[in-house]
Amino acid sequence: MSLSLSDIGKAVLETEYAVRGPIVARAQELERSGKRIVYCNIGNPQALGQKPLSWVRRILALSEFPALAQLAPGAFPADAVEEAHRLIEGSKHGLGAYSESKGVRFIREAVAQFIRERDGIDADPDSIYLTDGASKGVQAALRMLISGPQDGIMVPIPQYPLYSATITLYEGKQVNYYLDEHNGWKLSRQMLEESIAEAKRFGVRVKGLVVINPGNPTGSVLDADNIAMIVDFAREHGLTILADEVYQENVYRQGERFVSFAKVMHDKGETDVSLFSFHSTSKGFLGECGHRGGYFEIRNIPADVSAQLLKLQSVSLCASLPGQVTVYCMVRPPKPGSPSHDEYARERDGILGELKKRARLVADGLNSIPGVACNEVAGAMYAFPRIELPAGKTDSEWCMALLEAEGICVVPGSGFGQIPGTAHFRTTILPPTDQLADVVDKIARFHASYR
Amino acid sequence: MSLSLSDIGKAVLETEYAVRGPIVARAQELERSGKRIVYCNIGNPQALGQKPLSWVRRILALSEFPALAQLAPGAFPADAVEEAHRLIEGSKHGLGAYSESKGVRFIREAVAQFIRERDGIDADPDSIYLTDGASKGVQAALRMLISGPQDGIMVPIPQYPLYSATITLYEGKQVNYYLDEHNGWKLSRQMLEESIAEAKRFGVRVKGLVVINPGNPTGSVLDADNIAMIVDFAREHGLTILADEVYQENVYRQGERFVSFAKVMHDKGETDVSLFSFHSTSKGFLGECGHRGGYFEIRNIPADVSAQLLKLQSVSLCASLPGQVTVYCMVRPPKPGSPSHDEYARERDGILGELKKRARLVADGLNSIPGVACNEVAGAMYAFPRIELPAGKTDSEWCMALLEAEGICVVPGSGFGQIPGTAHFRTTILPPTDQLADVVDKIARFHASYR
Repeated sequence: MSLSLSDIGKAVLETEYAVRGPIVARAQELERSGKRIVYCNIGNPQALGQKPLSWVRRILALSEFPALAQLAPGAFPADAVEEAHRLIEGSKHGLGAYSESKGVRFIREAVAQFIRERDGIDADPDSIYLTDGASKGVQAALRMLISGPQDGIMVPIPQYPLYSATITLYEGKQVNYYLDEHNGWKLSRQMLEESIAEAKRFGVRVKGLVVINPGNPTGSVLDADNIAMIVDFAREHGLTILADEVYQENVYRQGERFVSFAKVMHDKGETDVSLFSFHSTSKGFLGECGHRGGYFEIRNIPADVSAQLLKLQSVSLCASLPGQVTVYCMVRPPKPGSPSHDEYARERDGILGELKKRARLVADGLNSIPGVACNEVAGAMYAFPRIELPAGKTDSEWCMALLEAEGICVVPGSGFGQIPGTAHFRTTILPPTDQLADVVDKIARFHASYR
Repeated sequence: MSLSLSDIGKAVLETEYAVRGPIVARAQELERSGKRIVYCNIGNPQALGQKPLSWVRRILALSEFPALAQLAPGAFPADAVEEAHRLIEGSKHGLGAYSESKGVRFIREAVAQFIRERDGIDADPDSIYLTDGASKGVQAALRMLISGPQDGIMVPIPQYPLYSATITLYEGKQVNYYLDEHNGWKLSRQMLEESIAEAKRFGVRVKGLVVINPGNPTGSVLDADNIAMIVDFAREHGLTILADEVYQENVYRQGERFVSFAKVMHDKGETDVSLFSFHSTSKGFLGECGHRGGYFEIRNIPADVSAQLLKLQSVSLCASLPGQVTVYCMVRPPKPGSPSHDEYARERDGILGELKKRARLVADGLNSIPGVACNEVAGAMYAFPRIELPAGKTDSEWCMALLEAEGICVVPGSGFGQIPGTAHFRTTILPPTDQLADVVDKIARFHASYR
């Protein structure tokens, strides 16, 4: 055949993406042959039974088929009808037309307003780009930063494999910095300095720094002081920050709250460090993964660079309009006192309350297993426990064996990165609370037999 | 600031995308200052008043909010309710969950059935990949083909700038082959041979051949003999074919019909030439650009190569589910005799009938202007007339001046490629029929004054 494996470039061949790797392929195979599989490999809440918010789906249905407001007057509270009407008017041509390359301006204005209210700082709709999920935004930012094989991007270890995969595909250098497992996966100035010093010794031109907050897969949450330290580090080394903030609504530990990089940079008066910050409709309490809604905001980016970014985005024309509408629903919830508010608040609090319970249940459950140690899940949707393995066994083998024995699909630590000689796995905390205890029991049973 | 223009790679800087270039930016600026603009720069039917098909939007609304079937029983014909129900069941988790990386299997099965019925050949759901519009599919195919700076892709001139932009971004070589304007933009074996011979003289390793049928921007339609000739050429030179077939429903000339590369290859018993063929929900009579639905089908691709393709797709997780549903609606129209069929057929025939009228109106109107010559618009959604310009003037300058004088936004021929020394522009045939005569009149008035 005219196309053969020898035609495929090194960058493509070397790209790895563990979250959908061989273990997931095997799980699908087992499922087709009739085995029941619990998919804990990916943060896909609605695949594990989470219900969509009624507010979001009502607005989407009305935007798809505006005549419904008349055809089915009883099906929609007045505020949903009004909001959908405003949105369709604001989009100019509805959901069937390509929007501007950055996304519908009316929706970008709503995102800017959301950032203003969240952080008490100004935000510019022209600095906001609506994207098909956060992934596409991350790829756009990395495309801007990586211009040659010596360009390096610092990523936390463990990290979300979108970063390693994209850096490999764009033929840049991944520069690892380790998070401190024994200190709740915190990151320290010293680790950042060691990492960049070593990269420079190897001739790497370090250009960007990825921070995932709340952490995936670690579940840790950064405070304002941490973030200020990172911003100082970036400024001193001339780095651009990629702040992956898709789990900003998923903070469970008492007394902690999400703080954005944009706010810390504003409060410090930082005007040198370039920032891309990412958000998504797939996580939080919406869990609308299939709608692929997302946005990124840029700060301290020169106009000639943002012109290049806009040009690149325009090659793909625009993000999906239903995804853009989902972003609008995320940043414009029903107001207190409006007809939809109570239902919305009830659904939101129900989901977040369950996730909080599950975060504790998973960490406590895993910690009760001999040979497993798990940090508290303070945020996000995952636990990343350390496991003791028999000599010569890898965490990939352990995960595959767990799948075969118990039908539980998790991802080996090697897919996220870990200190050599250690072994981990990542599991989501998403299965329904009543099933989750069973998942933990099965892992316990399996691990006992495996050791 | 930490990120500056000097950080941006050559590939990004050199990428050009005329369909959304400086002329469109200026048009948006003029529009914001109150000027009325007719956007003829992009095939975006619903932005120019085309109504979405009711069938498509009913299924989308029901998929977003399944309770509507009970809440608003009068709003939905029984077949729409049944089809949406089947679709939600088939998707397993509805529109809120990530699907498999290739897309929902139930929808890929429907696409395979559509190809079987269209072409009378077999089709495999596992060889179908659902994508965010056809653009993302084209980019995936080019990513597989371009592995180094000497890898060349043959593209027609004129071409759709997605190809030139992506080849530049992936740092491959664009190998031009010219279509014969004086012969209805047909392509000939001789032109293909000349083009590849010259590329080889310069050391280019030619790996792929792009064919756009029906043609964008040319409006020409290939017959089975043409396609067989192209397949023979590809086989003899070991090329992979990228068949851009997104305008397959847009054939206007009496007696012509769309023939797919898959069918011709099947009928010839061709098993060596690798094929990617692309389709989209954005064109045809759906015009659902904002939903970014699309798919590609692969044939004669070895399993180890398709495994790499799947891995790459998995890094982006999956295409938007509403886009996938739109693909489903495209390939599963209501059956004759079902409650929605007559309305569907009426809407479809109305749109295609108007487009056919407009295709003739635009070509005839342009040909009546002194100094403008336009081939018949046999298919697709564009005219690409040749214009005579005063010495020293470029088609970019002409287009900008047309915009300033008459508020009509078209794209210069230089964005698509043309024989040096000639000048063209591309206009869509999409404005409503009653406005279109006015557009042609304004172009005539402007061109007379410009010369």
